[in-house]
Amino acid sequence: MSGRHVVVRNIARTDPGLVARLAKAGVATVHEAMGRRGLAGTELRPNQINVRIAGPAVTVSSHPGDNLMIHAAVETCRPGDVLVVTTTSPSTDGMFGELLATSLATRGVIGLVSAAGVRDTAELRDMGFHVWARAVSAQGTVKASPGSVNVPVILGGVLVSPGDVVVADDDGVVVVPREEAERTALRAEERIAKEAATRAVLRSGELGVDYYGLRDRLADLGISYVDQA
Amino acid sequence: MSGRHVVVRNIARTDPGLVARLAKAGVATVHEAMGRRGLAGTELRPNQINVRIAGPAVTVSSHPGDNLMIHAAVETCRPGDVLVVTTTSPSTDGMFGELLATSLATRGVIGLVSAAGVRDTAELRDMGFHVWARAVSAQGTVKASPGSVNVPVILGGVLVSPGDVVVADDDGVVVVPREEAERTALRAEERIAKEAATRAVLRSGELGVDYYGLRDRLADLGISYVDQA
Amino acid sequence: MSGRHVVVRNIARTDPGLVARLAKAGVATVHEAMGRRGLAGTELRPNQINVRIAGPAVTVSSHPGDNLMIHAAVETCRPGDVLVVTTTSPSTDGMFGELLATSLATRGVIGLVSAAGVRDTAELRDMGFHVWARAVSAQGTVKASPGSVNVPVILGGVLVSPGDVVVADDDGVVVVPREEAERTALRAEERIAKEAATRAVLRSGELGVDYYGLRDRLADLGISYVDQA
Amino acid sequence: MSGRHVVVRNIARTDPGLVARLAKAGVATVHEAMGRRGLAGTELRPNQINVRIAGPAVTVSSHPGDNLMIHAAVETCRPGDVLVVTTTSPSTDGMFGELLATSLATRGVIGLVSAAGVRDTAELRDMGFHVWARAVSAQGTVKASPGSVNVPVILGGVLVSPGDVVVADDDGVVVVPREEAERTALRAEERIAKEAATRAVLRSGELGVDYYGLRDRLADLGISYVDQA
Amino acid sequence: MSGRHVVVRNIARTDPGLVARLAKAGVATVHEAMGRRGLAGTELRPNQINVRIAGPAVTVSSHPGDNLMIHAAVETCRPGDVLVVTTTSPSTDGMFGELLATSLATRGVIGLVSAAGVRDTAELRDMGFHVWARAVSAQGTVKASPGSVNVPVILGGVLVSPGDVVVADDDGVVVVPREEAERTALRAEERIAKEAATRAVLRSGELGVDYYGLRDRLADLGISYVDQA
Amino acid sequence: MSGRHVVVRNIARTDPGLVARLAKAGVATVHEAMGRRGLAGTELRPNQINVRIAGPAVTVSSHPGDNLMIHAAVETCRPGDVLVVTTTSPSTDGMFGELLATSLATRGVIGLVSAAGVRDTAELRDMGFHVWARAVSAQGTVKASPGSVNVPVILGGVLVSPGDVVVADDDGVVVVPREEAERTALRAEERIAKEAATRAVLRSGELGVDYYGLRDRLADLGISYVDQA
Repeated sequence: MSGRHVVVRNIARTDPGLVARLAKAGVATVHEAMGRRGLAGTELRPNQINVRIAGPAVTVSSHPGDNLMIHAAVETCRPGDVLVVTTTSPSTDGMFGELLATSLATRGVIGLVSAAGVRDTAELRDMGFHVWARAVSAQGTVKASPGSVNVPVILGGVLVSPGDVVVADDDGVVVVPREEAERTALRAEERIAKEAATRAVLRSGELGVDYYGLRDRLADLGISYVDQA
Repeated sequence: MSGRHVVVRNIARTDPGLVARLAKAGVATVHEAMGRRGLAGTELRPNQINVRIAGPAVTVSSHPGDNLMIHAAVETCRPGDVLVVTTTSPSTDGMFGELLATSLATRGVIGLVSAAGVRDTAELRDMGFHVWARAVSAQGTVKASPGSVNVPVILGGVLVSPGDVVVADDDGVVVVPREEAERTALRAEERIAKEAATRAVLRSGELGVDYYGLRDRLADLGISYVDQA
Repeated sequence: MSGRHVVVRNIARTDPGLVARLAKAGVATVHEAMGRRGLAGTELRPNQINVRIAGPAVTVSSHPGDNLMIHAAVETCRPGDVLVVTTTSPSTDGMFGELLATSLATRGVIGLVSAAGVRDTAELRDMGFHVWARAVSAQGTVKASPGSVNVPVILGGVLVSPGDVVVADDDGVVVVPREEAERTALRAEERIAKEAATRAVLRSGELGVDYYGLRDRLADLGISYVDQA
Repeated sequence: MSGRHVVVRNIARTDPGLVARLAKAGVATVHEAMGRRGLAGTELRPNQINVRIAGPAVTVSSHPGDNLMIHAAVETCRPGDVLVVTTTSPSTDGMFGELLATSLATRGVIGLVSAAGVRDTAELRDMGFHVWARAVSAQGTVKASPGSVNVPVILGGVLVSPGDVVVADDDGVVVVPREEAERTALRAEERIAKEAATRAVLRSGELGVDYYGLRDRLADLGISYVDQA
Repeated sequence: MSGRHVVVRNIARTDPGLVARLAKAGVATVHEAMGRRGLAGTELRPNQINVRIAGPAVTVSSHPGDNLMIHAAVETCRPGDVLVVTTTSPSTDGMFGELLATSLATRGVIGLVSAAGVRDTAELRDMGFHVWARAVSAQGTVKASPGSVNVPVILGGVLVSPGDVVVADDDGVVVVPREEAERTALRAEERIAKEAATRAVLRSGELGVDYYGLRDRLADLGISYVDQA
Repeated sequence: MSGRHVVVRNIARTDPGLVARLAKAGVATVHEAMGRRGLAGTELRPNQINVRIAGPAVTVSSHPGDNLMIHAAVETCRPGDVLVVTTTSPSTDGMFGELLATSLATRGVIGLVSAAGVRDTAELRDMGFHVWARAVSAQGTVKASPGSVNVPVILGGVLVSPGDVVVADDDGVVVVPREEAERTALRAEERIAKEAATRAVLRSGELGVDYYGLRDRLADLGISYVDQA
């Protein structure tokens, strides 16, 4: 989001231990643990099923239809990173495919989250490179216009700063600011423990309206219980 | 669709034998058997593949971003039911996840059809709780605003009254009014028999334009058969 | 796109050897080999995964909600063909299902690409009839209005003439005009060879910015390399 | 929504006096007076500005791309009616234009609400025939497939029975069931009076949070008032 | 749609007399006169009301987010032309604004039809330069990637060759191939005469179902006339 | 975007002199002057034409379907402010209407920019309260769930901090961070001066390709000038 175009080479990343704890929690739990924030919309869909990843974000801001800055971003990546690609205006073009994935996988990058399109989707699944994207499109792109690497970007309505944690699974993508990672991991773990207890209660047949104490609220809201005429 | 908010506890359900016959027929055949009515649009997509369910509808009308009334609906459900969730204005929020599914599954509910979003999609597949929804979204919801349970609702452009049969498979969702269930089951079975015969004819190589007698119609419509220049 | 409605019976098809070479290349490579043309948008989604087909197009232009002309098209098909269905205005109706697929499969047709909807999606997967479509919908259609078979049509923003090659896989659909098939096959093969070499280089750890010589371009565009503050 | 196709000739209409009272209230007020129900979505947009109409609904259910049933509906219309057009699957076709409007205007019909498209939009404005529609499209239609007139239809997610009151203005379209018209008119008038008082208070500078007594609620919800750091 | 990028300088244009006759007819009538073909979808919306233009097309194919080729197109324009802008993948960027309009107006160009976005919309209305576009967007563009001028392009699902007639009004945009212009103008004029007669009949109160002879068709389709229960 | 819900009472606003200079420039020019940043997408459409406003942002983050926090925001507003409303998940509900506008106008607020819906659109135009919104909808909302006032929010993909300048006109909405306001105003004025000169040149008939020096670039990109065959 800077007016000048830059590639920021060295970024501060969230601690790997925290990343691993957030990965265990998954998107829905992390989102709740942040106070229901951080979710990157409903348009970023996984290219594979039953996969969950988490890693520090390396961010890219590209011109639509142009993947030059993705190429520029590669050397700033480290093992465990997740590449986050955005465009300065909406694009579904296939800015990313198997060759870029090969390059990133060689550097240990574990996945891509893109506000634009991807291609070579079967090959990406075959090689185990995990992708969440707004579109599948073979549309080729150029390498002609400037952009930036490792600047703050907006992804699906959420601010992503380089080094923030990106968690992605079948439910979508959530972004945890680096300074909130520890607190969020802790709260997520508390939530997981609490949900395990709730699950056992609900499995026993106790109703949520009783367990959560919702009957008074339903009454306060003026909801009547009636029999079908 | 009532101005007052109510939870209707006891509803009349379609006969289980009729439900089973509709389940065998599937969405496309049931829709045709009803005179091409009852289809709940194209936006409700399955969270799993190769699954077909049918059951009486327990209906919910919720405020967007609020799943209070889903909790209120649970105790009105019986084994074999399908929960139908709608919102009073469009919402993609993740109003439903694995804990609610656990509660419903404990009561024998066989699936959910939601005009809003769902989350915990991998977990829902793992536990075999079948879902059709307009969106996948981890977006958390509140429990603050009133709604109704077991009132008539509109789902994907179709009226659903409590107790109507909901049939859902890979092709989408169709709704059969309770009073049309018997007639529809019968017509669906007739259609299945007829299609088996047609299938055999088409496999033998006979053309549909001949078998269906369409050549005269094509001629009447002024369609010319020509050779490529 | 003709004002009169016609069924063109005999069409010139692309040579099967060229079709096979294009099938090997796949959608993304063929699109690049054509100079980044021919891609039929991002809305045509596969009904199966990990499948690639290629074949000469038999084209249909139908009234929305009417599949009469698909029936009329069947007898113009030959083994190896791909049926391409378009409508004169946007439609998501389920114009195509298992019975039509049975008829086409009997004639050796290998797949369908439709700008409208399909139904019987589970059955189509079971029988191995491959489909790319804009929507899944059980919505039934009539057989009442005229259209044309084997006239040029627009599919996803791309012109398709009968006999052109349609290549479809997980990345979408690309159309190669018959007169460009040989040149495109050749260029696609050159590209595949070149990409194999590039892949080996990238796997060795060499960066794309170096291998593609992009560092000068980044500098010319005024992009600065900076360290994080 | 009937399986057989019918034209219902004589329908019971809401009392003209009630219609006039609802017309005065307008869409937003009527919607609130019904308990926030009845709104026909956000996709039906006016073809003119600063116009409000209300009248009993004459309903049409058409095949997409076919306006035969609109022609069939004309003779069932009376002065003051509003024609409501729906299609059995989504369509943007220009099913209605200046000639149909001429015919309807001759019979005293005051406007059209269509879930499909309209054309001759400039001419419709010139002749003062008011239209709300989902799309503007010149796409021509056929007269080939059956449908129904004056059966219950779903318009923008709302059930419309023939004779119900349709109110339409710059804010959209709301539908008042015939049996709720009197109660709704009364509540709308109460609301108008109440809003006039509120308006005077707010103009005097008193805050809504005080006038509506919202400060306690904000506190109960845990909202803190802070100064900018 | 060519693989090489070209600017075609001198194009054959439709005769101005034919253009003027098509302009009189307007979009809906021209579309009908072509056999219900040529309509460029429903997404191209006018930036002004109550304006109709017609002129020979000068066509542009641009990279998304890049208006270099619009600049290249200017010198190929002549008085009375309409500029048609398309992009090789979907874009809403503001590729066109008041400065380009000034340049075109100086050369006598009468309007723009763009599959992408426009900006300076108030200024364009002030200067009387008429525009139809898919989006309003101030998003700035670059001048970095190649494209073509005066090659065939696809606009809203319709093929446009340079020199074809573009007719645009409040109902949208229709394209008449140069070789069909004379026939279309003639048929449009016949249609206008016929509609004038029909209008007089309908104003007299005669019903369309009688005048168009639709009563037999309604009966053949099995439609029953019934009284409300 | 904070996990706790707060109302920030006193915010730092951009200097009124700078706001006035940005208002003169308008959306497109300000966006360009910021290096083509800050544009809040293409979905926020004006409720009036030929109006331009600029003012410091008072920001609201609301639960969907709930306008409690808009009421809470009113007392933090000052003359000249622009209210910016966002929701935590997508909503088209009519969260804002004439009564809230009356309250805001009384405090000197000059307009609203909303990522959700508005109602009373005719009344808002009558009273001269200017609005840009994603939807027109009469859908009523509740006052039940917490949110925040004057925290950073994301509007149409752009970060808005309280006190930033919002400029809105027929082309859409652009946001200028407070710390960039002076630099942006200066660059916008330079751009206006430069464009005046360019306009004069283009009016004289000189081509943009010559004036901007684009002929070499076109040649470098391999674009050929050819004559029509």
